[in-house]
Amino acid sequence: MQPDVPMSRLNPSRRSRVAPFMAMDALRDARALEREGRHIVHMELGEPGAPTPRRVREAAEAALRDGRFGYGEALGDAALRARIAAHYGARYRVDIPAERIIVTTGSSGGFMLALLAAFDPGARIAVTAPGYPAYTNILSSLGLEAVPLHLGQETRFAPTAAMLEKAHRVKKLDGALFMSPANPTGALIQSEELSRICAFCDEAEVVFVSDEIYHGLEYAAPAETALRFTQNAIVVNSFSKYYAMTGWRLGWLVAPDALMRPLERLQQSLAICAPTISQCAALAAFDATDELEENRAAYARNRALLLERLPGMGLGEFAPPDGAFYFYLDIADVTADSMDFCKRLLHEAGVAATPGLDFDPGRGATTIRLSYAGPEADVAEGVARLAAWLGRR
Amino acid sequence: MQPDVPMSRLNPSRRSRVAPFMAMDALRDARALEREGRHIVHMELGEPGAPTPRRVREAAEAALRDGRFGYGEALGDAALRARIAAHYGARYRVDIPAERIIVTTGSSGGFMLALLAAFDPGARIAVTAPGYPAYTNILSSLGLEAVPLHLGQETRFAPTAAMLEKAHRVKKLDGALFMSPANPTGALIQSEELSRICAFCDEAEVVFVSDEIYHGLEYAAPAETALRFTQNAIVVNSFSKYYAMTGWRLGWLVAPDALMRPLERLQQSLAICAPTISQCAALAAFDATDELEENRAAYARNRALLLERLPGMGLGEFAPPDGAFYFYLDIADVTADSMDFCKRLLHEAGVAATPGLDFDPGRGATTIRLSYAGPEADVAEGVARLAAWLGRR
Repeated sequence: MQPDVPMSRLNPSRRSRVAPFMAMDALRDARALEREGRHIVHMELGEPGAPTPRRVREAAEAALRDGRFGYGEALGDAALRARIAAHYGARYRVDIPAERIIVTTGSSGGFMLALLAAFDPGARIAVTAPGYPAYTNILSSLGLEAVPLHLGQETRFAPTAAMLEKAHRVKKLDGALFMSPANPTGALIQSEELSRICAFCDEAEVVFVSDEIYHGLEYAAPAETALRFTQNAIVVNSFSKYYAMTGWRLGWLVAPDALMRPLERLQQSLAICAPTISQCAALAAFDATDELEENRAAYARNRALLLERLPGMGLGEFAPPDGAFYFYLDIADVTADSMDFCKRLLHEAGVAATPGLDFDPGRGATTIRLSYAGPEADVAEGVARLAAWLGRR
Repeated sequence: MQPDVPMSRLNPSRRSRVAPFMAMDALRDARALEREGRHIVHMELGEPGAPTPRRVREAAEAALRDGRFGYGEALGDAALRARIAAHYGARYRVDIPAERIIVTTGSSGGFMLALLAAFDPGARIAVTAPGYPAYTNILSSLGLEAVPLHLGQETRFAPTAAMLEKAHRVKKLDGALFMSPANPTGALIQSEELSRICAFCDEAEVVFVSDEIYHGLEYAAPAETALRFTQNAIVVNSFSKYYAMTGWRLGWLVAPDALMRPLERLQQSLAICAPTISQCAALAAFDATDELEENRAAYARNRALLLERLPGMGLGEFAPPDGAFYFYLDIADVTADSMDFCKRLLHEAGVAATPGLDFDPGRGATTIRLSYAGPEADVAEGVARLAAWLGRR
């Protein structure tokens, strides 16, 4: 019954020519192999191996029995915003009113709102290389210019105020978007340096967007929030990582007062509200500390296993990660094509990993990211497969 | 412990100066009154009064017991995409491969992806006035120009191919974005007219974005999908309305092949994936037809009540809505300030409604939208309060 129609000659927009997120492509390829019956160890994604905490699931079940999951308010559920505000008091000893919090559809939804609210097309935003690939993609799709700061071992892959100042002198920056602890390196911006970054941004009127999505997952010193040092920063956070709620797509922003109404208006039109059931569930997340700290202990054991086993595999130097759940490995001694390396690792050894090109288009052909967020047995199996496969090559 | 910081002088971006979504502002005000103990009848939102169908909630509960809600694939769960594809065969007798479907975070998430993928800044997109306010806000925040087509009683508030052609002659259009049945008028684009619109867009290389979010909610002839007439259209749909899943934030796009990879890349970076628990739940939505058809019968009774009672209230002419669950009322005989009218209606009579300015900045000062999506008892109470309040004025 379908009419005879010509093939589409529809042209995608120029701004849709963003790079693929290779971690997601790797996931797709891994799932395709799984559908064929292969067993795959997933080290490609920042996906907590532990399930969503029991208390969180129970809160969702209780809400399901009630049955009403209507639209919520654009800024988020009032009780959840209050609970997030209380979290800033309890964990960081900073006083954040609930009125400065907006609940978002994951940190992804938070970035869209924050970047649209703070920057007009053409604005220049400092990001790190290596860094989270979605940053540059979101920036370019919104007409913003990513200004990469190239990181290396000399600062243990953490950006510094001095780097920012230097980039700003070369050509004025409008914003800076840093993550600590960072994806893909696990690098933490130490408290003193974070304070200097905040002070520089305040002074130079550079909008600092502080991505604190991996807070709670530190293995030495705890990460400090930018809100201890300035109230002008936009803080991005999420229930995905520490709270093990990736698929629930729930995050939050803490923003300066002047941005709250613009953020609310954008949320009304661009998203309406964050998922209601996820908001019901997340109210219980701050009470699931026992389970969440068990998860963190498991990540710490995975990290220790990799710290022990990786040096023997001939994969070159790496910085022991301060937080998050990734190792960013230099594989220049083994290959100059991380895409091919990851593809073969997946197909030949059944281990999914992410090519470094996702994180650093310049130098990523000789790096990969391994996630140790998975269950301990999986990570152990992945390490064994990786070692055996590298031995055979 | 918080440092003494200066007040933020952060300036919101120009593109964040979108209009507020007054329906959401009305919801916020109504909720505030409810927190003070007032009873409010909600006629401001397109919020189904019925709960999410039992089968859908049971599917979510079953998934919750499993506990794993990780990131999903960017294009959406394979089983859900296949189920949506099957729906096109069953309901419309059109053959849509699952590969052309992407599951999105509500229709809102679908719009962001579709508009970014198909249009570059400066593109001109025809929309209707009155129309869904988020359209113009999303368009302006993405640097796109909304070209309003002014609708009236002469076409029963439905846009036509002739209008589109005329606008295109004045200045070339790049796209057209129409909803049928429409918010706020309930107007349906009849099948023959839709066919002409699709043919014109194909011929003129105008990208047609067909918002079919209210499909399933028709009270006379069923709505036809644009996909019967062209494979070049981008179809936007959602589980929110007919499937009564607003707060779950789940929708889908059907797009031409050429846009699928750009859409996938944008989703990877801008959203990662749609909420996993909502995808698990939505798989059951297509099997909840008995419950959903009961909902539709209740909307039909609400509509009949309003068709009977409204003419006696002195609110002027209106077109009986073909679908969706709204009446768009001309209140010029009563007021020239629909904002003030709605505010007083809320505070004095406890009925939340949406000022027409949301939908038509030009003529909306003398219109309001009433939603009859709520429970029958609520709608009856709302109608009684409205009549009594209008009588007292």
